[in-house]
Amino acid sequence: MFASKDGATRDQRTEPAPEGRGEGGEERAALARLLAPRSVAVIGAGRDPRGAGHRVLRNLIDGGFAGPVYPVNPNADQVAGLTCHPSVTAVPGPVDLAVIAVPARYVLDVVRECADAGVAGLVVLTAGFAETGQGSAQRDLLKICRASGMRLVGPNCLGVINTAARLNATFLQGDPTPGRVAVMSQSGAVGAALLQRLPVSSFVSVGNKADVSGNDLLEYWADDDGTDVIALYLESFGNPRKFTRIARRITATKPILMVKSGRSGSGDRAVRSHTAAAATPDVAVDAMVAACGVIRLDSVQELQDAAKLLSTQPLPGGRRVAIVGNSGGPEAMAADACERRGLVVPELPRDLLEGRVSSSAALANPVDLTADADADEIRLAVETVAAADEVDAVLVVYTPPFGSGLERTRQAIAAAARTTGKTVLACVAGHDGLIDGRVPAYAYPEQAIAALARAAEYAEWRARPAELPEPVPGVDAEAARRVVRAELAVRSAGGWLSPEATADLLRCYGLNLVPSVAVGSADEAARAAALVGLPVVLKVTGPVHKSDVGGVRLGLASEDEVRLAYDDMEETIGEEMTGAVVQPMLPGGVEIIVGGLNYPAFGPLVMAGMGGVMADLLADRAFRVPPVSRAAASEMIASLRCAPLLHGYRGAAPAAVDDLLDQIVRVGRLLEDLPEVAELDLNPVIVTPDAATVVDFRVRVAPVDQPPA
Amino acid sequence: MFASKDGATRDQRTEPAPEGRGEGGEERAALARLLAPRSVAVIGAGRDPRGAGHRVLRNLIDGGFAGPVYPVNPNADQVAGLTCHPSVTAVPGPVDLAVIAVPARYVLDVVRECADAGVAGLVVLTAGFAETGQGSAQRDLLKICRASGMRLVGPNCLGVINTAARLNATFLQGDPTPGRVAVMSQSGAVGAALLQRLPVSSFVSVGNKADVSGNDLLEYWADDDGTDVIALYLESFGNPRKFTRIARRITATKPILMVKSGRSGSGDRAVRSHTAAAATPDVAVDAMVAACGVIRLDSVQELQDAAKLLSTQPLPGGRRVAIVGNSGGPEAMAADACERRGLVVPELPRDLLEGRVSSSAALANPVDLTADADADEIRLAVETVAAADEVDAVLVVYTPPFGSGLERTRQAIAAAARTTGKTVLACVAGHDGLIDGRVPAYAYPEQAIAALARAAEYAEWRARPAELPEPVPGVDAEAARRVVRAELAVRSAGGWLSPEATADLLRCYGLNLVPSVAVGSADEAARAAALVGLPVVLKVTGPVHKSDVGGVRLGLASEDEVRLAYDDMEETIGEEMTGAVVQPMLPGGVEIIVGGLNYPAFGPLVMAGMGGVMADLLADRAFRVPPVSRAAASEMIASLRCAPLLHGYRGAAPAAVDDLLDQIVRVGRLLEDLPEVAELDLNPVIVTPDAATVVDFRVRVAPVDQPPA
Repeated sequence: MFASKDGATRDQRTEPAPEGRGEGGEERAALARLLAPRSVAVIGAGRDPRGAGHRVLRNLIDGGFAGPVYPVNPNADQVAGLTCHPSVTAVPGPVDLAVIAVPARYVLDVVRECADAGVAGLVVLTAGFAETGQGSAQRDLLKICRASGMRLVGPNCLGVINTAARLNATFLQGDPTPGRVAVMSQSGAVGAALLQRLPVSSFVSVGNKADVSGNDLLEYWADDDGTDVIALYLESFGNPRKFTRIARRITATKPILMVKSGRSGSGDRAVRSHTAAAATPDVAVDAMVAACGVIRLDSVQELQDAAKLLSTQPLPGGRRVAIVGNSGGPEAMAADACERRGLVVPELPRDLLEGRVSSSAALANPVDLTADADADEIRLAVETVAAADEVDAVLVVYTPPFGSGLERTRQAIAAAARTTGKTVLACVAGHDGLIDGRVPAYAYPEQAIAALARAAEYAEWRARPAELPEPVPGVDAEAARRVVRAELAVRSAGGWLSPEATADLLRCYGLNLVPSVAVGSADEAARAAALVGLPVVLKVTGPVHKSDVGGVRLGLASEDEVRLAYDDMEETIGEEMTGAVVQPMLPGGVEIIVGGLNYPAFGPLVMAGMGGVMADLLADRAFRVPPVSRAAASEMIASLRCAPLLHGYRGAAPAAVDDLLDQIVRVGRLLEDLPEVAELDLNPVIVTPDAATVVDFRVRVAPVDQPPA
Repeated sequence: MFASKDGATRDQRTEPAPEGRGEGGEERAALARLLAPRSVAVIGAGRDPRGAGHRVLRNLIDGGFAGPVYPVNPNADQVAGLTCHPSVTAVPGPVDLAVIAVPARYVLDVVRECADAGVAGLVVLTAGFAETGQGSAQRDLLKICRASGMRLVGPNCLGVINTAARLNATFLQGDPTPGRVAVMSQSGAVGAALLQRLPVSSFVSVGNKADVSGNDLLEYWADDDGTDVIALYLESFGNPRKFTRIARRITATKPILMVKSGRSGSGDRAVRSHTAAAATPDVAVDAMVAACGVIRLDSVQELQDAAKLLSTQPLPGGRRVAIVGNSGGPEAMAADACERRGLVVPELPRDLLEGRVSSSAALANPVDLTADADADEIRLAVETVAAADEVDAVLVVYTPPFGSGLERTRQAIAAAARTTGKTVLACVAGHDGLIDGRVPAYAYPEQAIAALARAAEYAEWRARPAELPEPVPGVDAEAARRVVRAELAVRSAGGWLSPEATADLLRCYGLNLVPSVAVGSADEAARAAALVGLPVVLKVTGPVHKSDVGGVRLGLASEDEVRLAYDDMEETIGEEMTGAVVQPMLPGGVEIIVGGLNYPAFGPLVMAGMGGVMADLLADRAFRVPPVSRAAASEMIASLRCAPLLHGYRGAAPAAVDDLLDQIVRVGRLLEDLPEVAELDLNPVIVTPDAATVVDFRVRVAPVDQPPA
């Protein structure tokens, strides 16, 4: 099945080590000291039990942190039974982590003292920095940290947790459940919600992300033996291209689950005002997800549901699900949910269970053992279907209190799960949690199936062949750069390239442009038609929307027809017509759009979609972050609803899809090489059985800012 | 806004009283005695506290049922402190409801005794009837009930609850929460799950639905003052057309929420084996929902979430939502969810809250008061935004324990909600339930927003103009019936009508068929072309797929061209060509498919969709249950993604949409009048600026079974 480890899959590939800050030795070591400290100081630990500092101190003590914990408070002798120190410099030992909970106006002084005391890392809980417009205070804070080599989590955050180190340096109520999920949240409230239902290895509330970012944490958790699954709540990306690079490497061995808010205009408004974060266009986020195997979810609940499964059970070997239980209704709903989520509920052979379970049971799959089924019968049925070749995963549906009751049935499910290497999960009405610490249980069947579908998709991602960088022959990047620079030298703000410059640029990347002759009169048009070969297409040039003004004439079969068409156009369109181009008419093909965009905060995106007049209406489009491998281009095309048109629909000859993929790969390379290309449209690319030919095109260039660090 | 009660809306319309069984007086009164009994006998009440009968008895006693409760058990003197009676005939008083929990082999005898004793209604908990293949036992059971006038719930069910009557005649654990939602479930397990989170007026587990059906209960609850919302879990429809009729009447004043399982092939398999129910094609179910305002949901959780809102809060007056709370992350996610669900998060004027709440709050909407906000600030903000003209509903997002803590904040939310007539709901992380018994609270923002979107859609349904029956002029139903009967007289199994008969039939309903002349030779074709007017279309007839064999030639401009084209076709297609038809060529229009289907178990459906080669690929289609009013036809067309093509896309002249709607209405009328029409295809209907013309068509007829009672 697709999670097979045979062949060269993502699991086995080695990637070049990523570059950049936080990936080197020293800062990394500082981050490790922050997240797994040997000693902690809590600066601003007051006597008021409702204060954040006090609560951090309590959580550290109650959580059983093994190293020394130092309350720092110049106005108290003792807090929570520990002796206070007047400042961090007065602490009688080295401090790996200082948690800062003093009012905003004191933070910079306290941080300077931490630098003097040789503290390795800071968690600044205090709010009132960039999120309320105090950007300069945050910059000063960061400056001190950078100068001294301290790493900084926050400001404006809830703190950090590391269950392996018994470190709870947050001011949250309640104890975290130890487990194998590392959680990062850009919102305190969402972080708190995530903690409520997830078994965690680490938790970092990053707040304003002044220093330690999601990318830093991803790299840290990539090598953390205690972490099997990484869960992120994001409102913005600091460096999306770096995120992609790091995530692609990690998802080869550990799933990354992500909720990214700010999809909508208003959600976006909320996020911006909330954390002063730069918005990333949502389509770009989805394309990024597709490029690097990150599992994007729409809600915290879905994330919790998927993380619970991925951190406890083996990945499913395929999409085939057996549904076994004591209640037909929820089982039917689970089967419906499978269909919605792209999972398969195969009909099972009758003799698999016949004679082994009660005669009134339905055996086909879903297997409904009826409300009378006791725990032993459920265990037997689960073990039997799990062992069947037809099955990749088993969902056990149990409605209490029927049969043997909740507790005995939970034991039976746990026992059955231990007999198989396949994925087992449960739906137990009204009970959300873990059975035996390793079988995830969900209150509703739809939750279970949604989580399983995510796991199956991730397993497919893992099993895919690694996308190695592919050579793109026939590219003259240097010449292309000259075209772009020439334009920007003349117009520093950029703009649409002339048709000639555009054609030059695209040819540098080996794009297959239709022969096209610019003409300024009817006679020139007729001569050009003879040159490119009849029949031809005549297209107006000038500041008009060609198809709206009758500026495109197809299938002109003789020089006379061309001449007449030109005159006619001139008469209809009038002064706005600056001339026309003559192109050979391509035999009936499929119209595809290939395009590119470069979002300022994000980087390039390649688009492929259906062409023609229906394109606007149907938005049948796929996006990818370059580099776009041939395999990725193929996936883009396969995801289009118009894809069957390319493969010989209703007896037509199959189109030259390989040539189309080649053009998409080349566009990806162009966008990667030339960040000045802000917008690129090949519309349409006509794909005939013989070739994919770019018939119309335009390119806009814009000056490039320095990329973020 | 759209829930305004001005004008003639559904709320005010009166409908003809529905006909049929259970709608008349006597049986209805018997059902009322069953669901609101003055006395209950429990037959099969044993001493084993785990037995179903014993548990029903306990639930009746513990629930505080006011009338007499009679345990019937020939082998015991006393059960649960009550004196047993040897049989129901020995009970010392009239019995309104008898709950039967004896083994299957005794059920018929016991039921005969109930008939003798003058019992009004039965709830048969016992399994082992139609659901395990014992259909004849179930028929016998029903026969006794019908003969004696007893109504029957079950067999194979959990029992019934009526909280107003303090009647808990189920064997479920736990007490039901009294409220205003009536619940009907065709699955015991799903019923039990529904009860866990819903405040209920009544609950009926219908089991095998031998007698009392969903339709009976709908009618009962329509007039039940204690019920504001009706929630259904269905696996099958007994009489879908009757359901539609009843539901349409009820949804004018009370929302009906429905989960219908068996969407998928495997879900369907589960349902069939589970309750021996006839499957209804899922697309028909969706069309029915559209026709009668029932809110269909994909999961029990969504149903619970929506029912909780609809049974406690006023309907929203529109789609504009204010989001107010103490936690930006969940608020941003709520805003994203609004966008996904078609709700609007309008930007609020700055001066609405400025100066009234803390200066660090974000005021635009979502309104993020930050984690520091106390209960008073939240209350003030909620009251203020609820009073704003820009807002139809307010979602309060609170993450405990920040600010004033859970309890005080709940009180603040309740207090604010009391000051407004608008919809108020809450998202409180980790807390699902009701605040103050009237503000629904959800653990996740997506749950709250999904529920609110359902309420907004329902409010729009309620506010729509009533769809009064519309006259369809120029219909000769009698002549049409003769065409259909003539065909079935010759071929009793039915089949595709001849082109001539099809044209006759369609013309009886005033469908606008393109002039079409059948021809058998090139010369005939040329003459026909002159007759219908050049240019023409030539189409092959015979057992071939026209477009695949080159059997359609468009735009033939002269008689010679027609002659040549005919000869060419003959040569290419060969013997399979039986002739051709000549039709005038229509000036460029939009191709639409209009169709009809008659599902044996369900009734007719009208379809409208995009035509042409893309139709198969894109499945851009809308379905309705006839009668299809002009307004409904307009909605069908508006829901198509190709709809903009009809309205003058990119400067084209607008198509004759009114004519298209007229054709759809006529197809609906035809399908309603002629149940023998099993399948009907008008493909394409070409809609030009002047007319909607049916260019190609086919009709299949089939004999009709008697409709279900």
